[in-house]
Amino acid sequence: MAATTLRQQVYAALPVGEDHRGAAWMAALVIGNVVLATAATLLQSVPELQPHIATNTSIALLLCGSIFFAELLLRFWTAPECDRLWRTFPVLGKCGAYLFSFHGVIDLLACVPLVFVLAGFASTGWLSLFGVIPLFKLSRYVTSLELVGAAIHNERHTLMALVLTLGLLLVVLSTCLFLIEREAQPAQFKSIPHTMWWGIVTLTTVGYGDMSPVTLTGRILGGMTMLIGIGMLAMPTGVIALGFANERRRRELLQNWKIVSGLPLFKGLDANWISEISGLLRSLIVPAHVIVITKGEFSTSLFFIVDGEVEIDLFPAPRRLKSGDFFGEAGLLQNKPRSATVTTVKPTRFLVLGLAEYQSLISRAPDLRQKLEETAAQRTRESR
Amino acid sequence: MAATTLRQQVYAALPVGEDHRGAAWMAALVIGNVVLATAATLLQSVPELQPHIATNTSIALLLCGSIFFAELLLRFWTAPECDRLWRTFPVLGKCGAYLFSFHGVIDLLACVPLVFVLAGFASTGWLSLFGVIPLFKLSRYVTSLELVGAAIHNERHTLMALVLTLGLLLVVLSTCLFLIEREAQPAQFKSIPHTMWWGIVTLTTVGYGDMSPVTLTGRILGGMTMLIGIGMLAMPTGVIALGFANERRRRELLQNWKIVSGLPLFKGLDANWISEISGLLRSLIVPAHVIVITKGEFSTSLFFIVDGEVEIDLFPAPRRLKSGDFFGEAGLLQNKPRSATVTTVKPTRFLVLGLAEYQSLISRAPDLRQKLEETAAQRTRESR
Amino acid sequence: MAATTLRQQVYAALPVGEDHRGAAWMAALVIGNVVLATAATLLQSVPELQPHIATNTSIALLLCGSIFFAELLLRFWTAPECDRLWRTFPVLGKCGAYLFSFHGVIDLLACVPLVFVLAGFASTGWLSLFGVIPLFKLSRYVTSLELVGAAIHNERHTLMALVLTLGLLLVVLSTCLFLIEREAQPAQFKSIPHTMWWGIVTLTTVGYGDMSPVTLTGRILGGMTMLIGIGMLAMPTGVIALGFANERRRRELLQNWKIVSGLPLFKGLDANWISEISGLLRSLIVPAHVIVITKGEFSTSLFFIVDGEVEIDLFPAPRRLKSGDFFGEAGLLQNKPRSATVTTVKPTRFLVLGLAEYQSLISRAPDLRQKLEETAAQRTRESR
Amino acid sequence: MAATTLRQQVYAALPVGEDHRGAAWMAALVIGNVVLATAATLLQSVPELQPHIATNTSIALLLCGSIFFAELLLRFWTAPECDRLWRTFPVLGKCGAYLFSFHGVIDLLACVPLVFVLAGFASTGWLSLFGVIPLFKLSRYVTSLELVGAAIHNERHTLMALVLTLGLLLVVLSTCLFLIEREAQPAQFKSIPHTMWWGIVTLTTVGYGDMSPVTLTGRILGGMTMLIGIGMLAMPTGVIALGFANERRRRELLQNWKIVSGLPLFKGLDANWISEISGLLRSLIVPAHVIVITKGEFSTSLFFIVDGEVEIDLFPAPRRLKSGDFFGEAGLLQNKPRSATVTTVKPTRFLVLGLAEYQSLISRAPDLRQKLEETAAQRTRESR
Repeated sequence: MAATTLRQQVYAALPVGEDHRGAAWMAALVIGNVVLATAATLLQSVPELQPHIATNTSIALLLCGSIFFAELLLRFWTAPECDRLWRTFPVLGKCGAYLFSFHGVIDLLACVPLVFVLAGFASTGWLSLFGVIPLFKLSRYVTSLELVGAAIHNERHTLMALVLTLGLLLVVLSTCLFLIEREAQPAQFKSIPHTMWWGIVTLTTVGYGDMSPVTLTGRILGGMTMLIGIGMLAMPTGVIALGFANERRRRELLQNWKIVSGLPLFKGLDANWISEISGLLRSLIVPAHVIVITKGEFSTSLFFIVDGEVEIDLFPAPRRLKSGDFFGEAGLLQNKPRSATVTTVKPTRFLVLGLAEYQSLISRAPDLRQKLEETAAQRTRESR
Repeated sequence: MAATTLRQQVYAALPVGEDHRGAAWMAALVIGNVVLATAATLLQSVPELQPHIATNTSIALLLCGSIFFAELLLRFWTAPECDRLWRTFPVLGKCGAYLFSFHGVIDLLACVPLVFVLAGFASTGWLSLFGVIPLFKLSRYVTSLELVGAAIHNERHTLMALVLTLGLLLVVLSTCLFLIEREAQPAQFKSIPHTMWWGIVTLTTVGYGDMSPVTLTGRILGGMTMLIGIGMLAMPTGVIALGFANERRRRELLQNWKIVSGLPLFKGLDANWISEISGLLRSLIVPAHVIVITKGEFSTSLFFIVDGEVEIDLFPAPRRLKSGDFFGEAGLLQNKPRSATVTTVKPTRFLVLGLAEYQSLISRAPDLRQKLEETAAQRTRESR
Repeated sequence: MAATTLRQQVYAALPVGEDHRGAAWMAALVIGNVVLATAATLLQSVPELQPHIATNTSIALLLCGSIFFAELLLRFWTAPECDRLWRTFPVLGKCGAYLFSFHGVIDLLACVPLVFVLAGFASTGWLSLFGVIPLFKLSRYVTSLELVGAAIHNERHTLMALVLTLGLLLVVLSTCLFLIEREAQPAQFKSIPHTMWWGIVTLTTVGYGDMSPVTLTGRILGGMTMLIGIGMLAMPTGVIALGFANERRRRELLQNWKIVSGLPLFKGLDANWISEISGLLRSLIVPAHVIVITKGEFSTSLFFIVDGEVEIDLFPAPRRLKSGDFFGEAGLLQNKPRSATVTTVKPTRFLVLGLAEYQSLISRAPDLRQKLEETAAQRTRESR
Repeated sequence: MAATTLRQQVYAALPVGEDHRGAAWMAALVIGNVVLATAATLLQSVPELQPHIATNTSIALLLCGSIFFAELLLRFWTAPECDRLWRTFPVLGKCGAYLFSFHGVIDLLACVPLVFVLAGFASTGWLSLFGVIPLFKLSRYVTSLELVGAAIHNERHTLMALVLTLGLLLVVLSTCLFLIEREAQPAQFKSIPHTMWWGIVTLTTVGYGDMSPVTLTGRILGGMTMLIGIGMLAMPTGVIALGFANERRRRELLQNWKIVSGLPLFKGLDANWISEISGLLRSLIVPAHVIVITKGEFSTSLFFIVDGEVEIDLFPAPRRLKSGDFFGEAGLLQNKPRSATVTTVKPTRFLVLGLAEYQSLISRAPDLRQKLEETAAQRTRESR
């Protein structure tokens, strides 16, 4: 029992970016360690510095490697606590699932330099590639990347099609330019594969200038290649912008859904009703320091807070509500006057369920009304 | 009769990307063949490799050419089975229509190297261009390209206008820069056409660096040219992004339309009613493993599945419904309680027709009700 | 009277892109002439060609100039017929307005080479700039440019702000880089103005490579400059894309407005009612060869055709309706069964006014009903 | 009292871009001064010009510095009048808040060259950086920048994630290319940090061409780097475009909110009612010279002017209403016929509150009706 508790405690202390979970000093240790390992690898490659820092680098790699190894062991041990790893492997169970996940592989590869340093090899040459792999550990802490990743994932078919088109155009345009330029510049445009370097440098508008056409026909084809390159640049931009907007809207809808389905008032309703209720909600954005409802009035809306904060001037002390809370259900269900004034503290986004919408909802399903009122009454008895 | 059947079988085996029709090994053969032909052509152009691979290349080209020729013959023979070629030609009928379609021309050109190899010519020089043309055959398998193509097609007038404007600016800016720079760098800025090479390289932000202004006035004009270039780059991006979004929305609307008009329930209704019904449908996105309707309840909506999958817990075995199926029509038409619980298996997108919307629909057209109920009753008798 | 008629005839023959007015051969003459004049100017600047084509060029310029002069005279003479020039000048009236309009100035400048050729000067050097100015005449024929122009015009404040920010960043970043690099490369980074050339080349991602930092600090600042450059490139793209989408939507709204206010049925209604009616219209997109209304049915919608074409199977000959026409008003106003079947010929976009919306419209304004029915009755008496 | 008045007058004369407040000549003086100071600093750095303009530059810097110092003093003195500085500092109060605001720091730094010139030092070398800092003063006058800034601020998490990803890719790709190319070009690809210069130049598609891979593997990796660079370029564009569109819509909503809540008719209503009313308003865009309401008619809408101008043909003189005004409330509240015809003078955007929407509003809250009518009656008594 104690061991389990310890494991849970350790798991809770290991930082993961998603929900800003984990001890702050541990996140600082891991990030600092990644930066140190990368810096050591980069500096090690500078010839002038090598005589001066060779020993320091080895020590740094040894130290970083040890910490990465400790992190790997801890994450491997606490893997069964993680509820994001839903697959279980035949061998090692959830621990195996961790080892074969993206982050598990990265955590493992980050320990490779340690092995070589311990084995007495200098971690130079191709081994130094393992010195920069720990950088991918940082992706644990940058949660906005997930949104970008989802946008790209949604549009992956279109983006793949664009990359294939680019490849097709690259081969065809390079073949044409090779045939045009090979006589004027045989040293530079040696073969079609050589000319493809010109092609990709031009299509992406990088333009190093190490190869460029000099004949009139070649320059006309080169100009067309550039225009096609601009078009190829415009298309993924449009596609990703659209994928981004769609992913945002989808997440917003799912957030509304989660807010409504997470309310005690609507517990136990099936997806169709939750969706109908979500659709009846009105979005309301209010600046800071504005009165939302006034004490004693007969307005009848129920307010869910999506973002921001409000203050209810209750006696003896005002109470603050934040994202996920709601208020005003007495007005909606029992038609009572407002018992307190509510003011926004920050700019706040609400979802509002008006009386008219509520009426139209329960008129379509009389048994829903009973259910809702029972739930509300029970909630009042229980928690307030 | 047997011949027709054989032709149909061959047609069905020939791969076309659109509906992933055709035998997988045949698609692999064609794609592998295209890759082989292109690789042979590219490697043939490398001077160092030519003595070593000359014979192999000829054999490869002979082999690839034969397969392309066989493909051409099969596609030509089975053309009458294809329902996408709606035009018939005076000579050869549908087979002629195939020969003059984009893919027919490509398939024909892909066989050209075979002819030259058989005739004893080396397929080098300009002939090697025919070696990369088979790449266009791949566009048969990349169906996302169609969406990109439609987006560009919708905005073709605006894009043409942008290309014309670019040409206009190119001539005018190059003329100005030529007049400014010809004295400082007479060797490089020889004439207006020569300066236009600088113009296109700068306007597209490629920037090879083989020509660049050195005088103060020339550099100021050069800087303005770059800013104009950025603007010219921004405009097609905006235009294509918008065209893309519009094309997506249009396809989504047409998909809804197709779902509704394809239902037995609404068979025989004219465009106006289909459109009204489409407009009354509510979109509903539900995560995986959520209960959509509960057995015994009195909810009254009809659900069409657009994307995803649901499971109905029927006795003795649960049944799965996928994209294009629908359920819940008994609740809508006969006001019966739900006879089974339905749960999503994957994240699913529904179109939902509520009772209120259905009522408002049939109140506007009493004869529609009778029609719908007759169709539903008949459908119940027939298929369930 | 005859003179006026001649002027009107000439005016009608002069091509203007807007409404594809004018004789096709005249448009071809003007466009060919512009291309010829530009080509002559461009070729004249090539030193190798000058001895060979000097005489031909002079003749070409003389010919083109004469045609441009004739065009100028004709447009000047017919200016009073043009209803797009709404301002009248104190001197010369509408003819003066033409001379001072954008196209008037271009038409005038296009004749300058003619004057110099007649005066015996060679039209080389800076004079050759006048040889490419006729290109701007082409903007008369590219009407999509107007949409692009409107999008840029709507966002001009934001775009100006971006250009100013770019200038500010250019000066500050160039000053910093000059201070960093002047010791390492005194020959290249001579002064702040010289370094600004590096700045603009880098911020716009052109990157000629004639100047680039070599010190570590300089390269770090250079890298930051490039990232800022990418950001500066992203912003106008976003702004223009948004401006484009807004301009499109605005034009679509105005088109709906124009369709509704142009109908005899709604003639004489004020802006508020037109707007209410526009708001009640439902957009309906139908593929080709679909039945929109069926003869003998009791559906009650009024259809306006926005884009596309439909066929009414009237006896003895079917009748085709196009963009701007409408049908089905008998169903809406007199509740009669449909008298004919209507089928789409092309993919067609309709605006549909349903009975429910019409009822809610006239219930709010009883006098509107009377007005509408009077108009409809009168229209039936008059034209059908 | 007089002193306060003087301070207020001075404050009112000091230009701030936000509301185009301040004397025009004062804005011209400040802007001219900034341009002069920057020009002097830029020219001072040109070696050829230094002997000629050394004295003039010192005088110019002395003059500009004095004016900047005077501006600083005036702004410091009048800071208590500014209602945008809401924080008060323990020392100096609002004056301290000004000194530590962005513009305060800029105003202070702009005076640094003056100190050095007075102290007898030449303001060259790193000191010349202070000569271009006054450019940031111009950001006071470019208010569109605020919208751009807000769009970037909204998306800062995503943009930061993109910059981090770019950094990660930069290190990993540069390490790989260094390992590939170091043998072929040891002089150029000296170490990983050196190769990172190639990496950032390629990922941003700048492409100076001072370093580029020559081996086959290096060029393949280089091509992939370019494609990744295009993707990295596409993503911020999409993100910023979306942030821009969202920020625009949010500002439009807040503007509607401000218009409605600022009306005497709706004074004292809480946020929920204001929001409901805002939601009931219909947007109406009308071209110029169109009749909006006709005298004597019984239409019943209330019009708020958002943008543009209308003319009411009152006797004896017509009256013009602009952005923020409203008309037609008699029709809505008292159901009277229109007392005058209203015509648009410019293209105008209205918000319209129809009778039906008003009825549904007051049916939900009977006490609101009484409140509104009392307010309206009082307003009629008071102001008309």
